[in-house]
Amino acid sequence: MNEFYAVVLAGGSGTRFWPASRKLRPKQLLSITPGSDQTLIEQTVRRIESLATPERTLIATGRHLIDGTKRALPWLPPESFLGEPLAKNTAPCIAWATALIHAKDPEALVMVLPSDQHVSDNEAYLCAIQLALESAKQGNVTTVGLTPTRPETGYGYIQAGSVGSEGVRRVERFVEKPDKPTAQKYLASDDYYWNAGMFFFRASVMKAALERFCPSLWTAMAAIANSPGDASSLVQSAFSEAESVSIDYAVMEKLDDMRVVPADFGWSDVGSWEVAWELGDKDAQGNVCPEGTVLVDAARNLTRDLRTSKDQKRVIALVGVDDLCVIETDDAILIIPRERSQDVRAAVDVLKARGSNELL
Amino acid sequence: MNEFYAVVLAGGSGTRFWPASRKLRPKQLLSITPGSDQTLIEQTVRRIESLATPERTLIATGRHLIDGTKRALPWLPPESFLGEPLAKNTAPCIAWATALIHAKDPEALVMVLPSDQHVSDNEAYLCAIQLALESAKQGNVTTVGLTPTRPETGYGYIQAGSVGSEGVRRVERFVEKPDKPTAQKYLASDDYYWNAGMFFFRASVMKAALERFCPSLWTAMAAIANSPGDASSLVQSAFSEAESVSIDYAVMEKLDDMRVVPADFGWSDVGSWEVAWELGDKDAQGNVCPEGTVLVDAARNLTRDLRTSKDQKRVIALVGVDDLCVIETDDAILIIPRERSQDVRAAVDVLKARGSNELL
Repeated sequence: MNEFYAVVLAGGSGTRFWPASRKLRPKQLLSITPGSDQTLIEQTVRRIESLATPERTLIATGRHLIDGTKRALPWLPPESFLGEPLAKNTAPCIAWATALIHAKDPEALVMVLPSDQHVSDNEAYLCAIQLALESAKQGNVTTVGLTPTRPETGYGYIQAGSVGSEGVRRVERFVEKPDKPTAQKYLASDDYYWNAGMFFFRASVMKAALERFCPSLWTAMAAIANSPGDASSLVQSAFSEAESVSIDYAVMEKLDDMRVVPADFGWSDVGSWEVAWELGDKDAQGNVCPEGTVLVDAARNLTRDLRTSKDQKRVIALVGVDDLCVIETDDAILIIPRERSQDVRAAVDVLKARGSNELL
Repeated sequence: MNEFYAVVLAGGSGTRFWPASRKLRPKQLLSITPGSDQTLIEQTVRRIESLATPERTLIATGRHLIDGTKRALPWLPPESFLGEPLAKNTAPCIAWATALIHAKDPEALVMVLPSDQHVSDNEAYLCAIQLALESAKQGNVTTVGLTPTRPETGYGYIQAGSVGSEGVRRVERFVEKPDKPTAQKYLASDDYYWNAGMFFFRASVMKAALERFCPSLWTAMAAIANSPGDASSLVQSAFSEAESVSIDYAVMEKLDDMRVVPADFGWSDVGSWEVAWELGDKDAQGNVCPEGTVLVDAARNLTRDLRTSKDQKRVIALVGVDDLCVIETDDAILIIPRERSQDVRAAVDVLKARGSNELL
């Protein structure tokens, strides 16, 4: 069964989980989901290790993140790690990985997966991936669409059409992030799914699509893949010249016959501390706090002690506060209402403006 | 001028300023007021050093607090420190100190001062003390009454009557903590003052009062003062047998002709983190936070970094939160709304119930 290739996308700027996330420690390198001490990227790779061997697992990440990413996945060979010299969104790195895989095996089946998502039902997840790989095997680029559970305005959607094979539907179109009323219509409909950025294809099929829609990008990436020696200068120039564009926009939206596997496996993009709270194990008052936290008249709070050294025991005491996130690291304490989690960026902006680079 | 005796009362259980205050580090051993790195007890002793020499300054504190208190006042001789074996409120320790002073000089003028109060106008403070000492010299036990600035229900009041000498009034009566409407009446009146627990008397006058109102207490304390050798077993038995009672209740309220010096010297009992915020230097948004704190859309907060070692720099970031106290020590972080500062006790109670003695 270990016959597939996995391409795990591990870029990310790491501001939404400050102070846990930093430039050199973006979300996928954090352990922020319940029930696991593993980083999100390790969970991602472990989840599909029955499908892709370490040798067939590629990690596309920023060059500056290579060291940290290798430390998170120490059992992968060095060749697994693709260091992007510049962040150019997903099309260039997927093209690069596709070219490398295509050079080895043009008919290889490839799954592209984000590195920083949470999945609570691994069995359903693998089931959906099997269906998607089966569909990809038939020659169709295939994605997985998550059944919406709320009128989310922060995600793109996939409109599904007629049923193709068992468990697979045709993609009508990709839909940008909707407004609230539209998202509510999508939720009520049976035809709209969240786009989680998971793609499945035969290498040869993606090559043909890239040749058609992004010819110069493909040429550059194929040259890297076919270079007999050190390709680093080719990588540098390919990324310098590449347009910064998502694979959705550059390729997927233009395909004539793309497929989607509707699925429901307890998926979350873990987009903020708020979501970390939502996913967490709650006490009777809805607090997601480690044992030992002192809670007096305190409800629906999230506390995290992410100090690297815990030689000095430290208790967090919350008295009379609700709906707060309290995040502690070696060098920072963040206090922010859960519902304002997105505004963590504002704190990061203050530190940037101050030149406090050691905290970024 | 250094002819007076000072008796500084330095008991205190140290729960209201948790996690800064602990059993062995009550409020008077903390530096929590603005504009000074000194502990409250050091500020108290420094404030009157022009009136009382180190040899004439007595510190009445719990036996378990002797070491910490000596460290806070290293220039005082060892004989200055009176260690109470049991906390029995203020009457026994004031009687003890009075007996010691009386044995040396029956006509000595004594000032009894709490160790944990804040004074913003030292000149006005010394002025009031001079008046009170002058009144005490005439033979009247005298107190200082603070002009109320708000309808405070947390303090006792002193009702003043006719004017005695310049700047001194007769005490009509001591009043227990009033309810809000009564406190508002007191505020509107010119006859009510806050009782700050400051007392001034001739040793012989207080001896006579104690002999009259607390004869067995005085006998026990006089025996200690007159003991030629080690009096520690006498101290132990005197405190074991002493009633736990305030000097106000045991003596002051029963005196026929007590005096009060009305005064206004920016006094505060520094009763809670809320008060620490009130006293603090505020930024434009009303925050009392050290430089470097990241404040985004945050108003009227108090943050304190009271870690003993600051080798590891640490930033506190408040985003979208108002009216909070955030107190950090080596082993604890407290987060509590300012207006609920009194409920810090509840956190301490939780730790007690858990047996987390290292945090108490």
